Amino acid sequence: MKFTKMHGLGNDYIYINCFEEDVKKPSELAIEMSNRNFGVGSDGLVLIMPSQKADFRMRMFNADGSEAEMCGNAIRCVGKYVYDNGLTHELNIAVETLAGIKILDMKVENGKVELVKVDMGEPIFDPALVPVKSEKNPVIGETIEVNGTVYDFTCVSVGNPHAITYVHNVDDFPVQEVGKIVEVNEKFPKKTNVEFVQVVDKNTLKMRVWERGSGETMACGTGACATLVATVLNNKSNRKSTIKLLGGDLLIEWNDNDNHIYMTGPATVSFQGIW
Amino acid sequence: MKFTKMHGLGNDYIYINCFEEDVKKPSELAIEMSNRNFGVGSDGLVLIMPSQKADFRMRMFNADGSEAEMCGNAIRCVGKYVYDNGLTHELNIAVETLAGIKILDMKVENGKVELVKVDMGEPIFDPALVPVKSEKNPVIGETIEVNGTVYDFTCVSVGNPHAITYVHNVDDFPVQEVGKIVEVNEKFPKKTNVEFVQVVDKNTLKMRVWERGSGETMACGTGACATLVATVLNNKSNRKSTIKLLGGDLLIEWNDNDNHIYMTGPATVSFQGIW
Repeated sequence: MKFTKMHGLGNDYIYINCFEEDVKKPSELAIEMSNRNFGVGSDGLVLIMPSQKADFRMRMFNADGSEAEMCGNAIRCVGKYVYDNGLTHELNIAVETLAGIKILDMKVENGKVELVKVDMGEPIFDPALVPVKSEKNPVIGETIEVNGTVYDFTCVSVGNPHAITYVHNVDDFPVQEVGKIVEVNEKFPKKTNVEFVQVVDKNTLKMRVWERGSGETMACGTGACATLVATVLNNKSNRKSTIKLLGGDLLIEWNDNDNHIYMTGPATVSFQGIW
Repeated sequence: MKFTKMHGLGNDYIYINCFEEDVKKPSELAIEMSNRNFGVGSDGLVLIMPSQKADFRMRMFNADGSEAEMCGNAIRCVGKYVYDNGLTHELNIAVETLAGIKILDMKVENGKVELVKVDMGEPIFDPALVPVKSEKNPVIGETIEVNGTVYDFTCVSVGNPHAITYVHNVDDFPVQEVGKIVEVNEKFPKKTNVEFVQVVDKNTLKMRVWERGSGETMACGTGACATLVATVLNNKSNRKSTIKLLGGDLLIEWNDNDNHIYMTGPATVSFQGIW
């Protein structure tokens, strides 16, 4: 079976073209192939399939075999895959996911997709929907004490919950110690992702992320979107900023007209393989 | 460039056939390809090359770009590679490494190599050569106290230093806490690998290993060899035993006639790729 290993800012998946290959047990295959010593090694498996409702359909399976709804880093790679491999000649496509139909805009250089812009939809502020237990709406300046230090959090959902706080020097910040405590704070009924953000200037934010259930990761697309929105709410950023993550940069725009968040970032082929 | 990802008990390397491919900067390539998110992902890179002195030559580069002398798990994969890909039709071959010429015996099933037996040479007991600071020779029952518990260590070199101790239940043993302390004990001038061994019966040992500079790993070929020798010295094992590691089983024999240690274990192809 042919596969392609791709990554978006180091968030790496195995991509299979299901127009050509037949995957019978995707959950088992994801577990087997994702193993970093005995298999191919990846964060999971992505199947690129025909759709009844959109141009393409993506199904995602995590390394533990569970099916995932959507991932901003993965869907950019789907865009690059279908264009670069001639499955479409359109630069604007609709992709069906478990989190709904997502619209991608591809930017091509020398015949290959370099950047993909994804419409990530509208942010959610209602504390009951984030969800976060708070009297505020939107939730700005919600305080949580960790190891004797009080942090102010802004809480936003972009389909999943995020709690954003600002630090002076994010490179040296103890993300793991603080992140794991905030993630499970009683204010977050479904736990939360936690973003630590250093404002470089109005157009540039540096961020490290503690992902709910995973720990610190190199990049989180929804975390970058939530961070931009929170930072606009706090009057620390323009509506279009570069978010610098450990894995690379994302350009995030919170559009004034349609209230949608647009994420633009790279998609990269690591190698092609035969399993 | 074509490559093959293989592993021996989960110890995984990228193998390149340098009879066909030209690798100009192996150290840089090892760093780039070994990255588990942005590259192929591996413990390192192995080049299979022509030799002036033996049938083949292997060069190994760790994931950090440094050149390694030899690895028992990797050299078994070299044996499988050269036979399965028709670079040799011999089942007994000599491979040049930085640690000298190693002799491999291949066991074939259905035209493919399943098991490879490697002559790992003679064990070294002289404490000055292991090296370990001790009045004993061989070094058996050297005591080290860790967190209030005294452990008896047997110290053997098989080209690199090993300290072996016996525990009742190796599955539940705190390998990381004890291993990291023993590794840097002042008795070991060049630090040491540390093996924790549960004697199941005279032909079966269960072992977990703390590798010097790496931490706990799934398998260590030289550690399994040192463990068998130490356990024979302690009259707890026959001269030929199965060593059960986290990554799988190795059969180790300390031969009575030539004093050499022979390691037999599997070599497995994960996938083939194009970089």
